[in-house]
Amino acid sequence: MTTATTPTTNKRPEKFVYYFAEGVAEGNAGMKSTLGGKGANLAEMTAIGLPVPPGFTISTDICTSYYAEGGKLPEWVKPEVLKALSRVENNINKKFGDTKNPLLVSVRSGARASMPGMMDTILNLGLNDETVEGLAKSSNNPRFAWDSYRRFIQMYSDVVMGMNSSLLEVSLEDMKAEKNIHNDNDLTTDDLKKLVVKFKDMVKQMTGQNFPSDPFEQLWGAISAVFQSWNTPRAMTYRELHNIPLSWGTAVNIQSMVFGNMGDDSATGVAFTRDPSTGEKKFYGEFLINAQGEDVVAGIRTPQPISLLREAMPGPYKDLETSYQKLETYFKDMQDIEFTIEKNKLWMLQTRNGKRTAKASLQIACDMIDEKLITENEALLRIDPASLDQLLHPTLDPKTTKTLLAKGLPASPGGVCGEIVFTPEEAVELKEKGKKVILARIETSPEDIAGMVAAQGILTTRGGMTSHAAVVARGMGKCCVAGCSEVNIDYVSEQMKVKGYVLKKGDIITLDGGTGEVFLGEVKTIEPKLDGTFDRVMKMADQVRRLKVRTNADTPKDAQTARDFGAEGIGLCRTEHMFFGADRIDAVREMIVAETRSEREKALAKLLPMQRDDFYQLFKIMQGYPVTIRLLDPPLHEFVPHSEKDIEELAKRINYDPAKLKHKIGSLHEFNPMLGHRGCRLAITFPEIYNMQSRAIAEAVAQLTKEGMTLIPEIMIPLVATEKELQILRSQTVEVIEKVQKETGVKFEYQIGTMIELPRAAITAHEIAKYADFFSFGTNDLTQTTLGISRDDAGRFLGSYISEGIFAKDPFVSIDQVGVGTLVKTGVDLGRQTKNGLKVGVCGEHGGDPDSVEFFENINLDYVSCSPFRVPIARLAAARASLKRKARN
Amino acid sequence: MTTATTPTTNKRPEKFVYYFAEGVAEGNAGMKSTLGGKGANLAEMTAIGLPVPPGFTISTDICTSYYAEGGKLPEWVKPEVLKALSRVENNINKKFGDTKNPLLVSVRSGARASMPGMMDTILNLGLNDETVEGLAKSSNNPRFAWDSYRRFIQMYSDVVMGMNSSLLEVSLEDMKAEKNIHNDNDLTTDDLKKLVVKFKDMVKQMTGQNFPSDPFEQLWGAISAVFQSWNTPRAMTYRELHNIPLSWGTAVNIQSMVFGNMGDDSATGVAFTRDPSTGEKKFYGEFLINAQGEDVVAGIRTPQPISLLREAMPGPYKDLETSYQKLETYFKDMQDIEFTIEKNKLWMLQTRNGKRTAKASLQIACDMIDEKLITENEALLRIDPASLDQLLHPTLDPKTTKTLLAKGLPASPGGVCGEIVFTPEEAVELKEKGKKVILARIETSPEDIAGMVAAQGILTTRGGMTSHAAVVARGMGKCCVAGCSEVNIDYVSEQMKVKGYVLKKGDIITLDGGTGEVFLGEVKTIEPKLDGTFDRVMKMADQVRRLKVRTNADTPKDAQTARDFGAEGIGLCRTEHMFFGADRIDAVREMIVAETRSEREKALAKLLPMQRDDFYQLFKIMQGYPVTIRLLDPPLHEFVPHSEKDIEELAKRINYDPAKLKHKIGSLHEFNPMLGHRGCRLAITFPEIYNMQSRAIAEAVAQLTKEGMTLIPEIMIPLVATEKELQILRSQTVEVIEKVQKETGVKFEYQIGTMIELPRAAITAHEIAKYADFFSFGTNDLTQTTLGISRDDAGRFLGSYISEGIFAKDPFVSIDQVGVGTLVKTGVDLGRQTKNGLKVGVCGEHGGDPDSVEFFENINLDYVSCSPFRVPIARLAAARASLKRKARN
Repeated sequence: MTTATTPTTNKRPEKFVYYFAEGVAEGNAGMKSTLGGKGANLAEMTAIGLPVPPGFTISTDICTSYYAEGGKLPEWVKPEVLKALSRVENNINKKFGDTKNPLLVSVRSGARASMPGMMDTILNLGLNDETVEGLAKSSNNPRFAWDSYRRFIQMYSDVVMGMNSSLLEVSLEDMKAEKNIHNDNDLTTDDLKKLVVKFKDMVKQMTGQNFPSDPFEQLWGAISAVFQSWNTPRAMTYRELHNIPLSWGTAVNIQSMVFGNMGDDSATGVAFTRDPSTGEKKFYGEFLINAQGEDVVAGIRTPQPISLLREAMPGPYKDLETSYQKLETYFKDMQDIEFTIEKNKLWMLQTRNGKRTAKASLQIACDMIDEKLITENEALLRIDPASLDQLLHPTLDPKTTKTLLAKGLPASPGGVCGEIVFTPEEAVELKEKGKKVILARIETSPEDIAGMVAAQGILTTRGGMTSHAAVVARGMGKCCVAGCSEVNIDYVSEQMKVKGYVLKKGDIITLDGGTGEVFLGEVKTIEPKLDGTFDRVMKMADQVRRLKVRTNADTPKDAQTARDFGAEGIGLCRTEHMFFGADRIDAVREMIVAETRSEREKALAKLLPMQRDDFYQLFKIMQGYPVTIRLLDPPLHEFVPHSEKDIEELAKRINYDPAKLKHKIGSLHEFNPMLGHRGCRLAITFPEIYNMQSRAIAEAVAQLTKEGMTLIPEIMIPLVATEKELQILRSQTVEVIEKVQKETGVKFEYQIGTMIELPRAAITAHEIAKYADFFSFGTNDLTQTTLGISRDDAGRFLGSYISEGIFAKDPFVSIDQVGVGTLVKTGVDLGRQTKNGLKVGVCGEHGGDPDSVEFFENINLDYVSCSPFRVPIARLAAARASLKRKARN
Repeated sequence: MTTATTPTTNKRPEKFVYYFAEGVAEGNAGMKSTLGGKGANLAEMTAIGLPVPPGFTISTDICTSYYAEGGKLPEWVKPEVLKALSRVENNINKKFGDTKNPLLVSVRSGARASMPGMMDTILNLGLNDETVEGLAKSSNNPRFAWDSYRRFIQMYSDVVMGMNSSLLEVSLEDMKAEKNIHNDNDLTTDDLKKLVVKFKDMVKQMTGQNFPSDPFEQLWGAISAVFQSWNTPRAMTYRELHNIPLSWGTAVNIQSMVFGNMGDDSATGVAFTRDPSTGEKKFYGEFLINAQGEDVVAGIRTPQPISLLREAMPGPYKDLETSYQKLETYFKDMQDIEFTIEKNKLWMLQTRNGKRTAKASLQIACDMIDEKLITENEALLRIDPASLDQLLHPTLDPKTTKTLLAKGLPASPGGVCGEIVFTPEEAVELKEKGKKVILARIETSPEDIAGMVAAQGILTTRGGMTSHAAVVARGMGKCCVAGCSEVNIDYVSEQMKVKGYVLKKGDIITLDGGTGEVFLGEVKTIEPKLDGTFDRVMKMADQVRRLKVRTNADTPKDAQTARDFGAEGIGLCRTEHMFFGADRIDAVREMIVAETRSEREKALAKLLPMQRDDFYQLFKIMQGYPVTIRLLDPPLHEFVPHSEKDIEELAKRINYDPAKLKHKIGSLHEFNPMLGHRGCRLAITFPEIYNMQSRAIAEAVAQLTKEGMTLIPEIMIPLVATEKELQILRSQTVEVIEKVQKETGVKFEYQIGTMIELPRAAITAHEIAKYADFFSFGTNDLTQTTLGISRDDAGRFLGSYISEGIFAKDPFVSIDQVGVGTLVKTGVDLGRQTKNGLKVGVCGEHGGDPDSVEFFENINLDYVSCSPFRVPIARLAAARASLKRKARN
C-alpha cells in the first residue's frame, strides 16, 4: 500500500524570510514559487510604494523542511523570524508582547496557487491578558481591545488547537440570549471580558491544554498550523485534482495588524478596479465605517457603495484611488482589492486579479487593448473560452427567488421554462398550438428528435454528458439537463416525482442547462446579447490560431448557425439523422427488414432522391467550405419501432406480415449495440447502403458543379478497425462515384477518409492511412472503447469516480489525455508516417472543450469540429493554445 | 484505389530450367523457393534413385519475368525449355510432336506452398490429329490413344483457353444417352473420334479460336496458363489469407507422360507409408489395374487394397516397397505417394508428407523416435496441437449415415445426443430422471449454468465462439454448437424449426461440437481413449517449454480435471460462477437490491461462509499450486431475474415489496453492459463486495495454513482502467487481509494483481504496475474493446469478415496479433519497465489457441491459462513455440 508521502528535503536555504515595509521589499511579484501568491503580491505592492502594513513572508522551502523534520519547525528558522519581527517592531514602533503598546500580527497561508482547504488567516495574534490592557490603553478603546482578544481566541483555538469552534460560538449566543440582545456589537466591554474567561476555560476543558498566553508560543503555533494545513485530507484531494505537487509547499505571511474598527475615522472595504459584471471602467466596491474585514462579508451591517467613501473620507479615498490605478497599471489586469483605513490612514491588505462575467471579461480585455495596457495576445490569454457559453444562451435571472427541485448534469446551457410533456409527439402537438414545453424523458433516442426540436429544453433522468440527449441538444444549442436521477418519471401515469412533489403533464418547470438545476414553476430569463467586443475578440483569435474550427451539423439550419458563429466547414455530418424524417423513415425501415439484396435496393432507391437533396442543401449553404459526410453509422435497430402497437402499424403501412416483422425486429436486438453491427460493418454485409449514400453525394456534387460551385466532398467511413475494411469500402465508393461522373459527364475532386474511433485503428493507423485521404478522430467512441465505459451507462459510477479523484474530469467532456490522448497521438503520428501531411481532425464532443483543444493543438491536428454553439469557444481555445505553444518554444 | 500490383523484376536468371531423369537431377528438395514444392520433391526423388518420369522444372523466377513482361513469356525462356525437352526426348527415345512415336508431357504448377486456386495439371500434352495416330500405333491401343486425346482437349480448353468445360462434358453425356450406355469406358474408338471432332468444333465456336494443333503452341500456352493462374482472384485471396507474398511466384513442371491405362500390365494408385488413421507402421493404400490417376479418385470402379498388388504385380510391387521405404527414410516423415505402373514398370509421380489423425500423429511421432528416424524435438514440431482436441472428447462414428439439420460454430468439441429441452430447469429435471438431454437456447446466461451442467450438450442460435455458452461449455469440456442461426427456437410453443423440420421438446438430436454440425436423431459415438503416446508426448513437451500452463477453473471438479491434464495452477477463477448456486443466489440478490450499505453488508455476511468454503476446497485441490482469484466482475443485473413472475416469487422469498423490486431491477438495466457498471467499478461504488470476497479468501488461506499447507493466493482486480482504481482497491484489500491475519494469528504471503483487459490499462501499464504484483491479460475483453466488437453480437457480421479476408481467423479464437497483440506487448513491456520481472500471464480464451500461445511465448509472458480440456493443447503449443524460437535465435 502506498500513501502520499511527504517531502524529505531538509536543507537550510540561504534566505527564507523576506521582509517588506514602506516601499522596500526583499521579494517581488515574480517570486510566487518562493513566496506564494499572496506574499509575492504583498512584496510587490510594497515595492511600488503602496501603503502595506509592514511584515514578512516565510518561504515555501520551510514548509518542505517542516515535513522533513516530521512535522516540526526546524530550530534554525526561529532566529530569522525573530529578526524580521523586530524589524517590524522598529518600523511601526510597537513591541510584540509589550504590555503597553503591543504589536499584533496576522498570520496567513499563501501557496503558489490559491487553494481552498488550506488555513486562511489568524488575526490579532499577540494578545493575552496583559497585552490586551496595553491595546485598550494605546487605542483608547477597551471594548475594541477585548473584542479583538475574544475573536483571536475563537480563531486560534479553532485553527491552531483543532477545537470545535462552534462550542465558543454557542456560548457567545447564550450570552446574547441571556442579555436579550441580537447584535455582537451590543456586547459591553464587561461582557467581552467574561466571554474571554469563559472561552479560555472551555479551551482547557476541550483540548486539555491551556490557551497559550505567551505571544511567541502563539506565533510558533500559528506558523506550524499553516504548514500543517498544507497536508490535510481536503487539501490533498484538491492538490491531486489540480495537479499541484506536494513539493510546492505553502508560504506563511506575517504582517502587523491594522484596524478598521477603531472609530469613525476607520473603515474597511473591498473593491474591483472595474465593474466585474459589465466590465465598465468604473471603480466598483463597498465599505463599512468602523468595522473589520469579516464584518463586510458577514452581512450584519449593509455596506455602502464605494463612491460614498469619497465624501466620508476624502483623504484616504484619494490615496485609494491612486493605489488602485497604480495596481491596475502595474498588474495590467482588473484587480480585486482589500483595504483598511485606520484612523484616516489607508492600508492595502491584498490585491489579486478579479473574477468577472464573460461579458465583463471581453469588455475589459478590449478596453485594456485600447488603453494600450495589454496586447491583443495578452487579452486572448485573459478570457476563459468556456465562459463564452454564457453569452450565447438565455440565462435565468439571478434576482428571482427559485424553488430547486433537483440537480442533474449541465448537459447543454441555457435557461428555459415550459409545460412538462413526456412524449415527443405531445411536444410537437403543443408546440404547434404555440405552447412552450419541456420534454421530460428517462432517456432519448433518435426517434425523439422531432420532439426535441419542438421543445424549449430537454430533461432526462439517465445518461451522461455525452448521452444521446446531451449530444443532440448541444448540437441544436438547446437547453438540456441530463442524468437527473433524483427525478422519477412514470410514462404510464404521465407524471414525475421529485422530492415529494408530484408533477403532472402540463405543470411548469424551469431548467438551467448551465448548472443542471431544475426549478419549480416559471423563472424569469434574460436573453443574451452579443456586442461588438465578441466579434472583435473572435477576429483576434482567428488571427493567431493555427487549428481550423469546423462544426458537427446535420441540417441546413445547424450548418447556417455554425457558419454565423464562424465555422470553417463541417467536420461531421451524421447522415443517420437524415433518416428520421417523417417522409422517409418508413422507407428506411423497409430497407432494414428486406430479406434480399434486391428488396433492399428497392427501398434504398426511394431514399436516394431525398438524400441527394439533403446533401445538395447542405453543400449549398457551406459555399465550398469542406463538408465531411459520415456514411451510415448506428445499428439498424435504432430505426425500427419496438412496441407491439407500433410494429403492427408499421406492418400495415409497409404491407408486411406482422408476425414476421416482429420476429425480424427482434432478431436485430444486440447485447452491446455500441460494439455491434454498425458503422462500416453494415456496409461490409450490405454494400448497397453506402453505395446509395455515395451516389446521393456524388449526384448532389455533380449538380452543384454544373451550377458553378466548386466543392470537394469528404466521404467518411466510420468504425474502421482494419485497413482491409477501408480498402474494400474505398474501392466500392470510388466505383460508384466514377459511375456518376460518367453518367453526368461532370468531373469533380473528392476525398475518402475514415474515422479513427477504435483503439485498433489508432494502433494500425500506418496501415489504414494507405487507403485514407484524411483521418477524423471520433473521440467519443474512442473514449468508450479505450476506457471500456459506455457513456450511456456511466452515470451509475462516474460520479464516484470523479469524487474519488480517479478522473479529474468527466472523460467524455474533457479528453483523457494520458489514455485516449496517447492513442490519438499515436494515430496521428503513424498516419503521417505513411502519408506525410495527412489531414487530421477530431469530431468528438471534445472538439469544443478548451483543455482538449489545447491538447489537439499540441499534437498537431489540422482542425477540430464541434457543435455549432461551441464554435466560438473552440476558436478562442485554439488561439490560446497557439499562443501558449509559441510561448513555450 | 489500389489493386494488387504484379512483380516487375525482369532479370534473366543464370539458370532457370532444372532437368531431372534417371538418378540425376539439377535440383533438390532444399530448393523449394526456386522449384516449388512439387518440383523440388521430383528432383529429390530422382536423385535418390527412384523411378521418376524424366522431365524438368521452370523456376519461379520466370513467373516474375512473365508478369514483368506484362503477362507474356519472355522469348529467352523458350530455347532453354526446348533444350531440356530434347534431353527428355533422348532419354526416353520419343519425340515431341512426332507422328510415329510421340512424346507426350504433363504440365503442372507448383508453388513453394501448396495453393488451391492455382492451375493443377494438364495431361497428355502433345496430341493432335497426327500424333494421336502415332500413339495408337506405338501403344498398339487406338482406343487408349483417342481417349487420351479427348481428355486432353477437355482439360486444355478449360484450363488454358478459359472455356466453360461443362459444355464438352454435356456433349459427352449426350453421346452416352444417345447410345444408351452409362460408362465412359463403353465408348468405342469411333465414338471417341467423333467426340474429338465435336469438341474441336465447340472450342472454335465458343472461344473463336482453333484448338491448337501445334504441340509447341500447346506447350507455350500451358506454361503461360500456369503463370497466369498465380494471379487469379481466388489465388490472390488465398495468398492474402495465408500471407504468401505475390513475389514468390509459381514454378512449372513438365514431365513425360506415363500411362496406367495401357492394359492389364498397367495400374495406378495412391498410398500412405503408414496407416493415417491409427499411425500403425503398415503400408496402406489402394490401386486400380488399367486405369489413370483420375479414375481412382472418380470412384467409378472400386480400387483394391494395396496388399493385393503384391500378388497381381510382384515385380513392380517390390520396386514400390523399396521406393516408399527409401522415401520415408529420406524425408523422415510418413509419405503420401502417387504412382503409376506402365507395362510392368513402376513410376513414382509424387510424394508429400501425409495428412493423419491426431492419434496417428502421436503414434507415428513416437514410433519414429524409437526408430531413431527423428529426434524428440522434431517429433514435437510434427504434431498439430489443435488436433489433440480429437483425443479428449467422444466423436461421432464416421460410418453411420446421418441427416444434417444445420451447421453452427464448433464452439466446444465432442459428439453427443439427447432429447431436446428448452429450459435449464427441464434439463435438470430430466437429467435427474436419468435422461440425456440437449439444452437448446437462443442464447445462454449465467442463470442457465445448472441446466448446462445437466445437459449432454448445448445448442444456441446466437453468439459466437466466445459467447457465454461457448466459454462456459469449453470450461466444462462439454459439447457445444453455438450461433446456429438456421435454427429457429420458439420457447412458447416449445419447438424449434430448421429446414422444414419442426422438432418438439423430447425429440432426439445429435451435436458434433468439433464441426458445429447438428444431426437429426441419434448418431452412434465413439469414446476417446488416451494411450501411452499421449503421456509420452506431453512429457516431451514439458521438457522443452518455457511458458507455464495454468487453467481457468471455478469449481473443484474443473480444477481436478485440469490438474489431471497437467495444469500448473489456476490462472483464472471467476468468483461470480460461485454466486449462482441454489443455496446462495437469493442472498446475492438481497445484496444487489439493498438500499443501504448496512443492508448490503447483512446480505454479504450470509455469503461469506459459503465463499470461504468455495476457496477452501479449491485451494485444497490445487495443493499449493498458484491460484488466481478474480473478484466479482459481471454487472449486477446478470444475477437478478427479469420475468414478471420470477420477480414476484423472489419478492416473496426475500420479503421485499414487489413493485419496488421490479423498479430496482429495471433500474439496473444497461445499454452496453460490457462497458457498464462492472469489474472494479462495482467495488469503487460498493467496497463491501470485494471486502467480503477478500475476507473469504484470507480466512480460507488462514485455515489451510493452520492445517500445514503453504499457499500464496493471488487476488485479481478486474477491469482496471487507471492506476488510481487499483491503488484504492489494493489498499482496501490489504486492510481486510491484515485484519484477518490479526484475528486468526496466521501470517501468510499473498499477491494482489490486476487484469489488463482495457486498452487504457495496456497503454498506462507502467503506472498500473506500481500497485500490481502481477498482470493477467484478459484478452477476451481486450479484443472486444480494441476492435470495438461485442463477442455476443459479432455473429451477424463476423462470417462476412472472415470470408472477405478482413480477419484471417476469428479474433476471439486466435489473437489479433497486429492490433490486440500489440497492446498486450505494450502492456508487458511497460509493466516490466516499472517492475523488472513482473509476473505476466494471459487468461483469455486465447490461452488455449496454438498460434496465440506462440505469440505469447515470443512476447515473454510467464504463463497462459486456458480451459481444462485445452491444457494439453497449450502444453504442446508452448513446447513448439519454444523450439521454434530457439531455432530462430
